[in-house]
Amino acid sequence: MAPKSTLDSVISLAKRRGFVYQAGEIYGGSRSAWDYGPLGVELKENIKAEWWKTFVRGREDMVGLDSSIILPRAVWQASGHVDTFTDPLVECTSCHKRHRQDHLQEAFEAKKGRASESMDEIVCPDCGTRGQWTEPQTFSGLMKTFLGPVDNEEGLHYLRPETAQGIFVNFLNVVNSARRKPPFGIGQIGKAFRNEITPGNFIFRTREFEQMEIEYFTHPDQAVASYEEWVEACWNWFVDLGIDPDHMRRFDVPDGERAHYSAATIDIEYRFGFQGSEWGELMGIANRTDFDLSNHTEASGTKMQYFDQGTGERYTPYVIEPSFGLTRSMMAFLVDAYEEDEAPNSKGGVDVRTVLKLDPRLAPVKAAVLPLSRKEELVPTAKNLAAELRGLWNIDYDDAGAIGRRYRRQDEIGTPYCITVDFDSLEDNAVTIRERDTMSQERVSLDQVRTYLLERLVK
Amino acid sequence: MAPKSTLDSVISLAKRRGFVYQAGEIYGGSRSAWDYGPLGVELKENIKAEWWKTFVRGREDMVGLDSSIILPRAVWQASGHVDTFTDPLVECTSCHKRHRQDHLQEAFEAKKGRASESMDEIVCPDCGTRGQWTEPQTFSGLMKTFLGPVDNEEGLHYLRPETAQGIFVNFLNVVNSARRKPPFGIGQIGKAFRNEITPGNFIFRTREFEQMEIEYFTHPDQAVASYEEWVEACWNWFVDLGIDPDHMRRFDVPDGERAHYSAATIDIEYRFGFQGSEWGELMGIANRTDFDLSNHTEASGTKMQYFDQGTGERYTPYVIEPSFGLTRSMMAFLVDAYEEDEAPNSKGGVDVRTVLKLDPRLAPVKAAVLPLSRKEELVPTAKNLAAELRGLWNIDYDDAGAIGRRYRRQDEIGTPYCITVDFDSLEDNAVTIRERDTMSQERVSLDQVRTYLLERLVK
Repeated sequence: MAPKSTLDSVISLAKRRGFVYQAGEIYGGSRSAWDYGPLGVELKENIKAEWWKTFVRGREDMVGLDSSIILPRAVWQASGHVDTFTDPLVECTSCHKRHRQDHLQEAFEAKKGRASESMDEIVCPDCGTRGQWTEPQTFSGLMKTFLGPVDNEEGLHYLRPETAQGIFVNFLNVVNSARRKPPFGIGQIGKAFRNEITPGNFIFRTREFEQMEIEYFTHPDQAVASYEEWVEACWNWFVDLGIDPDHMRRFDVPDGERAHYSAATIDIEYRFGFQGSEWGELMGIANRTDFDLSNHTEASGTKMQYFDQGTGERYTPYVIEPSFGLTRSMMAFLVDAYEEDEAPNSKGGVDVRTVLKLDPRLAPVKAAVLPLSRKEELVPTAKNLAAELRGLWNIDYDDAGAIGRRYRRQDEIGTPYCITVDFDSLEDNAVTIRERDTMSQERVSLDQVRTYLLERLVK
Repeated sequence: MAPKSTLDSVISLAKRRGFVYQAGEIYGGSRSAWDYGPLGVELKENIKAEWWKTFVRGREDMVGLDSSIILPRAVWQASGHVDTFTDPLVECTSCHKRHRQDHLQEAFEAKKGRASESMDEIVCPDCGTRGQWTEPQTFSGLMKTFLGPVDNEEGLHYLRPETAQGIFVNFLNVVNSARRKPPFGIGQIGKAFRNEITPGNFIFRTREFEQMEIEYFTHPDQAVASYEEWVEACWNWFVDLGIDPDHMRRFDVPDGERAHYSAATIDIEYRFGFQGSEWGELMGIANRTDFDLSNHTEASGTKMQYFDQGTGERYTPYVIEPSFGLTRSMMAFLVDAYEEDEAPNSKGGVDVRTVLKLDPRLAPVKAAVLPLSRKEELVPTAKNLAAELRGLWNIDYDDAGAIGRRYRRQDEIGTPYCITVDFDSLEDNAVTIRERDTMSQERVSLDQVRTYLLERLVK
């Protein structure tokens, strides 16, 4: 048996400690979506907060938006999604299970090291029959629903497959109400839905997922320069939050493989270590040109253009789109932070410890308050300290088991600081603060704990 | 013509300044959902952050969760929603438009001051025909979609009409992975979807909306006491964030009018000032008993119970559910903050000014940097100050027009502090900070602005 990969270890840790649960698990579970437990939701919220701070609130040229998930058919007709957001689907004539033709071909190539010559070579992953495939049929990746009292054409709406269109249709609203002029961008974080035929790889490919998207509107002449700036800015965001740049790479998506709206796309990929193909797309930066605004102008009759009073020029802005997968980013942060190193044990030897070396800004629990024992005299001091810190951060309180074991529990969820309240604390009004990565300990006065953490946690 | 109501003024302000846009406006718009513009998304995020801080991170007995929107049919079958989440619908036989029978009856009563004796008395709001109604038919409020390659029973899923069920089905996951025991609660913020027949009243009743829900698990003996505590805690949250308690009331929902799962419900209502009925439900606190956990135990075969090792008792916890409407809360905060008062103008007289007296924690823009003129010498100082503050807060920069007009623009979006950089600033390295409500001004040294705001904005 192959040694357990980092990816497997992370998935196992994520399930065991309550980062991620399988959606609908008690009813047999679903690969369509995942639920984020107490630690997962904090990690995810921290990623969102850092993204919003860096790319929206922190920039003079950006504003935020939150548009609806369900949009009328007309929007998706204009955007090209109704016609072109489709995948080629083949059915095994033996077991009648359906698969994406391109995924079968990719899997073949990953296994054999060469492209398949025809579908005749490809074996059904469900029943093992070789080459018994129907001709490919197009299959829409859009998920539909019906609004109003009757399930008919009038009520047909689609769940958005990208948050982007909600930004495009509001372009003029933002220009007018927020008094913006290009170059400027609109950022949005939210759910999107794609009817993937083969969801998989944990939270990497799911039917319900979350995006963090920016649509950056520029004069057409500035689009290429802006595109390059955004590739750098996105790359740097991951590095600043702790991803090893050696674990990322850029992939310049060639002609014929890009989305229907894109004149140029660079994907930033992360080495997740999947079976077959190690690398997976973390995000993409696309030059959507004036494709979307022009299409909405034509379809709606509303001119989605900008009139520059300075130059007298009226033009349709080009759009540079950095589109981040939120849950993919979360998965990359977890995989990159995962380490097994050595820590001293109570017997004077060393144990292997699992530690998530998450950037403190991302860590789901910022500090854990650990009374050395459950003895009554320690409880008020420890509880009061935890209550004081809870006003600022997500704080754990753990009084169960040996202190070494409690350190291990915090290490493996990435808690940067463990604060031990011991019997000396009652005398010197101080506590011991232990740092996660170095395991170094410092004695800090009780009334200085808040400041000590503020200096280290807030950037 | 009746004088413009506060509600109308707020709706008009919200649209004009970019708090809220109509979803899909360029395609004729939709009443099903609304989009939140640059100011709306900041206000909404601030409400979520305060809620999470108060009820999740700030409490020892609470954890967070983020579960999926789409769940299999089995969940909604077990929860009772497939069978009972329905409304009685009648169709006008003259124009064939459908309406909720109970809404028609309520509208009749609000107008006439007495209940209708039968549907024969009721006039169709669409075509004006009286009493030509079909017998009521039940209509499901669930929105469906299909996952996987074929639109069949196997792929049938529902968009959640409440976030609650995602919490119930994860009850054991949280107990085990986060090592929790009752009494404890799980909080969640997220979208929910209901196929309302008559959405309306701006962002009050929409088909796509956001909830902030808590499911609090207690021993059955403690449920009533917990219910009462939660009613107080919820009421106090609104008051602490600035809602005038005279504009709220409690409504003890009588037998026969409660949701199918509830043994007791108190609604907290706010005086929105709607036409017909002034009051609207802001949130509800329900005693869901063991209804949900028992039903999921029965339907899934997984025992959703808790075993208390201390007492040796095994029991199904009771659930107290405080369920907040996020967008309704946002609407209440806006209406309650809206004021028209008087401010001095440049001619030595007074003008009427519109001001949103939002709690600074909720204000979408925390401070605006206003260089007195666009003259070059002021720009670097003003831009540097704005850039410094942007690391912490959402900051506006406005150099367009007379200073009085710029104050008015900030007042009507609720910005607590306006910081003016003037020509003296170049000499004394100080700026003038103006407070929104009192309009008092203070000279503050440039290197103290951050601290000045920190002391006043962070609670």
